[in-house]
Amino acid sequence: MSLLVEKTSTGREYKVKDLSQADFGRLEIELAEVEMPGLMACRAEFGPSKPLAGACISGSLHMTIQTAVLIESLTALGAEVRWCSCNIFSTQDHAAAAIARDSAAVFAWKGETLAEYWWCTERCLDWGPAGGPDLIVDDGGDATLLIHEGVKAEEEYEKTGKLPDPASTDNADFQIVLGLIRDGLKVDPKKYRRMKERLVGVSEETTTGVKRLYQMQASGSLLFPAVNVNDSVTKSKFDNLYGCRHSLPDGLMRATDVMIAGKVAVVCGYGDVGKGCAAALKQAGARVIVTEIDPICALQALMEGIPVLTLEDVVSEVDIFVTTTGNKDIIMVEHMKKMKNNAIVCNIGHFDNEIDMHGLETYPGVKRITIKPQTDRWVFPETNTGIIVLAEGRLMNLGCATGHPSFVMSCSFTNQVQGASQLPNPSQGDAQSLIHGQPWDGPLVRQGTGFSYLLL
Amino acid sequence: MSLLVEKTSTGREYKVKDLSQADFGRLEIELAEVEMPGLMACRAEFGPSKPLAGACISGSLHMTIQTAVLIESLTALGAEVRWCSCNIFSTQDHAAAAIARDSAAVFAWKGETLAEYWWCTERCLDWGPAGGPDLIVDDGGDATLLIHEGVKAEEEYEKTGKLPDPASTDNADFQIVLGLIRDGLKVDPKKYRRMKERLVGVSEETTTGVKRLYQMQASGSLLFPAVNVNDSVTKSKFDNLYGCRHSLPDGLMRATDVMIAGKVAVVCGYGDVGKGCAAALKQAGARVIVTEIDPICALQALMEGIPVLTLEDVVSEVDIFVTTTGNKDIIMVEHMKKMKNNAIVCNIGHFDNEIDMHGLETYPGVKRITIKPQTDRWVFPETNTGIIVLAEGRLMNLGCATGHPSFVMSCSFTNQVQGASQLPNPSQGDAQSLIHGQPWDGPLVRQGTGFSYLLL
Amino acid sequence: MSLLVEKTSTGREYKVKDLSQADFGRLEIELAEVEMPGLMACRAEFGPSKPLAGACISGSLHMTIQTAVLIESLTALGAEVRWCSCNIFSTQDHAAAAIARDSAAVFAWKGETLAEYWWCTERCLDWGPAGGPDLIVDDGGDATLLIHEGVKAEEEYEKTGKLPDPASTDNADFQIVLGLIRDGLKVDPKKYRRMKERLVGVSEETTTGVKRLYQMQASGSLLFPAVNVNDSVTKSKFDNLYGCRHSLPDGLMRATDVMIAGKVAVVCGYGDVGKGCAAALKQAGARVIVTEIDPICALQALMEGIPVLTLEDVVSEVDIFVTTTGNKDIIMVEHMKKMKNNAIVCNIGHFDNEIDMHGLETYPGVKRITIKPQTDRWVFPETNTGIIVLAEGRLMNLGCATGHPSFVMSCSFTNQVQGASQLPNPSQGDAQSLIHGQPWDGPLVRQGTGFSYLLL
Amino acid sequence: MSLLVEKTSTGREYKVKDLSQADFGRLEIELAEVEMPGLMACRAEFGPSKPLAGACISGSLHMTIQTAVLIESLTALGAEVRWCSCNIFSTQDHAAAAIARDSAAVFAWKGETLAEYWWCTERCLDWGPAGGPDLIVDDGGDATLLIHEGVKAEEEYEKTGKLPDPASTDNADFQIVLGLIRDGLKVDPKKYRRMKERLVGVSEETTTGVKRLYQMQASGSLLFPAVNVNDSVTKSKFDNLYGCRHSLPDGLMRATDVMIAGKVAVVCGYGDVGKGCAAALKQAGARVIVTEIDPICALQALMEGIPVLTLEDVVSEVDIFVTTTGNKDIIMVEHMKKMKNNAIVCNIGHFDNEIDMHGLETYPGVKRITIKPQTDRWVFPETNTGIIVLAEGRLMNLGCATGHPSFVMSCSFTNQVQGASQLPNPSQGDAQSLIHGQPWDGPLVRQGTGFSYLLL
Repeated sequence: MSLLVEKTSTGREYKVKDLSQADFGRLEIELAEVEMPGLMACRAEFGPSKPLAGACISGSLHMTIQTAVLIESLTALGAEVRWCSCNIFSTQDHAAAAIARDSAAVFAWKGETLAEYWWCTERCLDWGPAGGPDLIVDDGGDATLLIHEGVKAEEEYEKTGKLPDPASTDNADFQIVLGLIRDGLKVDPKKYRRMKERLVGVSEETTTGVKRLYQMQASGSLLFPAVNVNDSVTKSKFDNLYGCRHSLPDGLMRATDVMIAGKVAVVCGYGDVGKGCAAALKQAGARVIVTEIDPICALQALMEGIPVLTLEDVVSEVDIFVTTTGNKDIIMVEHMKKMKNNAIVCNIGHFDNEIDMHGLETYPGVKRITIKPQTDRWVFPETNTGIIVLAEGRLMNLGCATGHPSFVMSCSFTNQVQGASQLPNPSQGDAQSLIHGQPWDGPLVRQGTGFSYLLL
Repeated sequence: MSLLVEKTSTGREYKVKDLSQADFGRLEIELAEVEMPGLMACRAEFGPSKPLAGACISGSLHMTIQTAVLIESLTALGAEVRWCSCNIFSTQDHAAAAIARDSAAVFAWKGETLAEYWWCTERCLDWGPAGGPDLIVDDGGDATLLIHEGVKAEEEYEKTGKLPDPASTDNADFQIVLGLIRDGLKVDPKKYRRMKERLVGVSEETTTGVKRLYQMQASGSLLFPAVNVNDSVTKSKFDNLYGCRHSLPDGLMRATDVMIAGKVAVVCGYGDVGKGCAAALKQAGARVIVTEIDPICALQALMEGIPVLTLEDVVSEVDIFVTTTGNKDIIMVEHMKKMKNNAIVCNIGHFDNEIDMHGLETYPGVKRITIKPQTDRWVFPETNTGIIVLAEGRLMNLGCATGHPSFVMSCSFTNQVQGASQLPNPSQGDAQSLIHGQPWDGPLVRQGTGFSYLLL
Repeated sequence: MSLLVEKTSTGREYKVKDLSQADFGRLEIELAEVEMPGLMACRAEFGPSKPLAGACISGSLHMTIQTAVLIESLTALGAEVRWCSCNIFSTQDHAAAAIARDSAAVFAWKGETLAEYWWCTERCLDWGPAGGPDLIVDDGGDATLLIHEGVKAEEEYEKTGKLPDPASTDNADFQIVLGLIRDGLKVDPKKYRRMKERLVGVSEETTTGVKRLYQMQASGSLLFPAVNVNDSVTKSKFDNLYGCRHSLPDGLMRATDVMIAGKVAVVCGYGDVGKGCAAALKQAGARVIVTEIDPICALQALMEGIPVLTLEDVVSEVDIFVTTTGNKDIIMVEHMKKMKNNAIVCNIGHFDNEIDMHGLETYPGVKRITIKPQTDRWVFPETNTGIIVLAEGRLMNLGCATGHPSFVMSCSFTNQVQGASQLPNPSQGDAQSLIHGQPWDGPLVRQGTGFSYLLL
Repeated sequence: MSLLVEKTSTGREYKVKDLSQADFGRLEIELAEVEMPGLMACRAEFGPSKPLAGACISGSLHMTIQTAVLIESLTALGAEVRWCSCNIFSTQDHAAAAIARDSAAVFAWKGETLAEYWWCTERCLDWGPAGGPDLIVDDGGDATLLIHEGVKAEEEYEKTGKLPDPASTDNADFQIVLGLIRDGLKVDPKKYRRMKERLVGVSEETTTGVKRLYQMQASGSLLFPAVNVNDSVTKSKFDNLYGCRHSLPDGLMRATDVMIAGKVAVVCGYGDVGKGCAAALKQAGARVIVTEIDPICALQALMEGIPVLTLEDVVSEVDIFVTTTGNKDIIMVEHMKKMKNNAIVCNIGHFDNEIDMHGLETYPGVKRITIKPQTDRWVFPETNTGIIVLAEGRLMNLGCATGHPSFVMSCSFTNQVQGASQLPNPSQGDAQSLIHGQPWDGPLVRQGTGFSYLLL
């Protein structure tokens, strides 16, 4: 892989698909600003005082039009920003182009390989000799992971001379992470520790990343403070619920044009994401079934008239499968074999291991027919019938559509801005939070304060 | 049976449960008037010219508060009115009392026996020596049936001297009808034919009655013109659909206090009534299943996310059964035996033969426990489990609650007023319709013109 | 007021409307048991070991059929029970009769005066010389209040000889409470302190009562431990939400028979209760408007397509008003004067001060016409138009219908049983909780553990 | 304009955007076949007997994937087919490519000019010297219109020597039609009359076209029999209702990515299309308002909780405007001037004159900013705020998304196949309908028989 960092005329680094899409991206960013009153209110209130002046922020979060408005809200508050996406399919190339041209260093394009993905993450964290970042805006925790793994490897290397070994893991992502760190170690064996020193903290967007943070806090391995943005009411009860209610059918329709009315749909998991998905499918006229192991969530489904069954019970009668659990190994290749011809299988949970893509890809004699990007028909040799898998098992709303709409992301991202602002401000020379002026104490991970920018 | 007709101080005949409830009835009638803008608009527009002056109208239609407003709209247009209910359980006694005291001759009470029911129907048609009725307002066609059977018997008797034989039929209702006619024949062998002579027509409220009329028209046996009120958009698409959407859950809740959310409900039939019932149950949080033999209605159910199955497939898993088909023998005692303990079984179709009450009542060893009036638990000896049958298989919304609400009945009854007004006006001495002044021609049964009183 | 306590043949005290309704009550209790799987599971699991043996439990909670199943679950676990209702209109007399005859000392009837209400509460707490109660099951906190006020008055009296003065307050309820305590003080100046000594704690059902407890804890005036049942997911997110979604339309229909479809309804407050009410009205076809001061709840309403406005903006166009806020002075007589003729005004929040009944009752020239019990039309002299107030401004679902259905109360009451079981067991001679065997420590008020009896 | 007809290797004519998309089109056609059970059942039942053998069929109907399955169903029954689209934006280029390569002569691409559109229509009707078509499958009636105008002009020309004058009309479409006919007249003055002679009839898809047919029948100007497919229950109550319920939000999301929840949307017209649109928007969380002049439809909206207002009353508060009326001049430029910044304006009725595009385009100083194809922002000079117009005021579901999904089109198109089959079969040498063998009599326009292929 020989990717080259490019530079704008002003010398800012970037790597995007096509910078000429910047005008198109700018037009859509301008539309989105009207739909993102929370972020615009942050700019109006805090922009003049520039509380983030001097702060270097690295973001690893789907590089979409909405994220573009977030980035330019951070720069409006004075920050300097570098950005990558947190999903190989979720970048909107015109958004990336506009930001790269106008506002921040962007390393992201739709359809990255895994190797390219981690290269982008590394670039996003690379502030050069001056050092940085001061803050991380993370979604899923990959930037945080890279730093933690980097520090761990450097310490091990310093102590024992042992380099990380990609062959030590089966996980494709983790193999690349280890390789990357190994190669970096030879060049600069203190890079991640310097990064950790300067870093004042991370604000984390999503359930999955937050769970990682609490685990690290519990095990004592968390290296810096973290703000849990996800559990703000105006994030998890809005983004997860209303966002998915919007973007699940959007993704289904763009990918397959299938009529949802009259179909049998199963939603695996009835948390906030599952609730949004089930509501959307039910309202569109599908017969919805839920699988759920939590008894309270299961009872909630029943109170809404939705039967709760096991996947095994219904797998051969379902037209549309959606995973929303945040857990792995939900739909296995053994399930897929029993599905109806042209059953649609997709995931809207954060990570890509809910659907057993590995099992499918390695199934003997299976045939993959790409209808269009992110829409594949997989044909089993025994039956010569196929199933349709969206976005290769990754987030289908970002892979097949454009993710959550601006308004709901305005709610989420306003929490991010406030989360970033609660972290200690490095430019102040002390451990004061950026805006609120309160010292950071108590547990390392703490919940973001709700925000008050519910302008409609 | 020795029922006595009573008389008000002004000499008007009546037979109701308790005349002292008239004040209560009057209060509720006054509330209902506010909710019945169509009827009140009829009074305002036609009241001054009294187009029904001199007309004797007999009505056989659930004697409720809403019907009271209809009756007083007819009298406001100049008519003289006699009334009975068309269902043994549907009378609201306070409504009957108020009308009996203030406006018209009423023969109706909640909980009539079948014999009492037909006695009331006979009284309703009995205008004494002066003769009548000129018009009939019918619901289900029982008044129309009595006249047709009466005329047939009189003609047979005149020709052959043969009297009707109640033993010739198994049908409990029809046995009584034949007995009634037989007894009447001995007293006055021309009564029904005189009635037919004077009668200018009937306006019929409901699907079941309309079907009877078209059948009689087709066979050439229909004796007088009829206006099909049922198929006005503002009747069948309002009363059947929105009325049942309201009054089905009302009846369920008043009869059983059962939580609808989380239950499995089956609606037999997905016509207008079934659509209203299914919508109500679904919205309340039940998992709804439909049984339907019409392919288009079945497909409509599927488009709304409602599975279409057979009763046999689901009978043992259902909590609430509702029949809406207008056909007989829908839920048989063989089904009931297989039901869950305390499954609720009810009917909201016009007639009482959708549920096999005869099979249930005569089932060996079955035990009936009356929880409260119209709510019976029937326990099977084999399992010692029971089912809960509402309103003895008759219209549960009228038996267990108060029927459709005023607003929707305003739509229906405004069609009735207009239907009555379209029939030739006997007081005009010619075959002119009462209001519109058009002669009656074409087929005997014709559809009522829509009305224009959609005041909100 | 000279109420006499009666006694059953076994010597148990009671005061109910009509003991002859016990058979009817028993039939409905048996139906309810099938719908209350959580409570029945508690009986099955804990009944044999009788963990509440020897415990005297006083309950102040709507004396309905569902509560009857709760009471008999407590007695099945070994407790002795005395009971009163926590609302003057919410008792179901047949439920009270069945329990009084078969299981516990009951002091409750539908339609108590305020004086009678507090007399019943006093009886419920009166375990005679042997002393008691050990535990209180409270709903709204009136039993808890009486003890706290009693203790306060006794201490004041002992110290200063000063008796409580009913004239010191405007609040009608509180006047009676003070009078009651005053009269009791003369007879036994240590009654409430002895009670407090023995009492091991209270488990509290509802938001309003829980708020009172936290306030008392904060001010240091809370005299005994308390379990917050309300905030269990299976209470507040089930009872408040799904319960009200069921019982609001039930109450509206039983009280007024009004068609909800097509009406404009305003729901004041969009918390759990408001969410349930708004959902029910929307699904029934009303145009729903919400008033809400909390920005997040307001935004949630908008995400469901419900406009958020102020009462002032819409008061003259609304057909149905529902208060759900838990705060006082929501709908004032000044609002009522501007309402449409026959607008319906009702409250489903816990206390009766959301609607300004005092302002209405004392409005010069206002006329009250009782349509039927709990349904009054109030006519203003200026316009001669009226509004319809349900349940005199108290909980309309309990006053006009039968409260929440059994299934949802099974969830709530299973939390109560578990709450009671978490309190220290007096019969064990130490401060161990009844079932779980854990000592009570930490803050006085603590949240009940969720329960695991989600049997469907 | 110098468009050249191209030819496949087998000599079949076509003109499409890019034949190399045929493989992609074929893949999607194969997916669609699984979703179109009605058409596949027609192939299975009638394919072997080839009832359309020898018939030349011209179709003017959106050239989409679903239409491709219709075309190949007609060819499977033996017909030879030529096709054009009935809307300049509705062609899916990959569908056109696949059909052009494999099955029929296609003249259609996405983004035709008006002149190109009518050139395509002319090509579609041009069967060369051998003559044709025998049958027309029309949608909106443009093919039918061209023949009628052609015949009229030829007769006028023959009688008076007068040629059609494009300058005689303001209507841009009609100017082109007249020019086309004028130019053709010089070459072959009998072309349209020969066409009319051979043509056995048309089956018409949509409300708009059907209205034209009934008007021509009434005025005596209709030249050949017509089957009204639109009013089959399985067309207008499925396609219009469920189709639009699906494709309206699809179009909105693809064009603008806007969050529908929380928005205020107005649907102009509450017929079947309006009902589908309102349901979709309401379910997605919008606050929906309807404008409607028909009192019954208006009352239906109210029964669903949707306020009925005038456009004037709400124009400045609405976020999303949708026209569904089938009438012209619904949203005028005067309305647009008063709209909120970035209000979305779109049409889902058949023709493009519901929105005053002419008024907008010619508004002094207005600025058009094309965000992306079919999504334009129009900025008014006075306010410098803009509105977003979709698909230039044409059918937004076809312009901005992919039209109705396959399943609902299967219902519609199965009616088309049956409609075509009911027309007299030219190859039989007599006036027998193709399949049913019944002679065509009665009125020229008749309703298609329902179909029985509700396979699920």
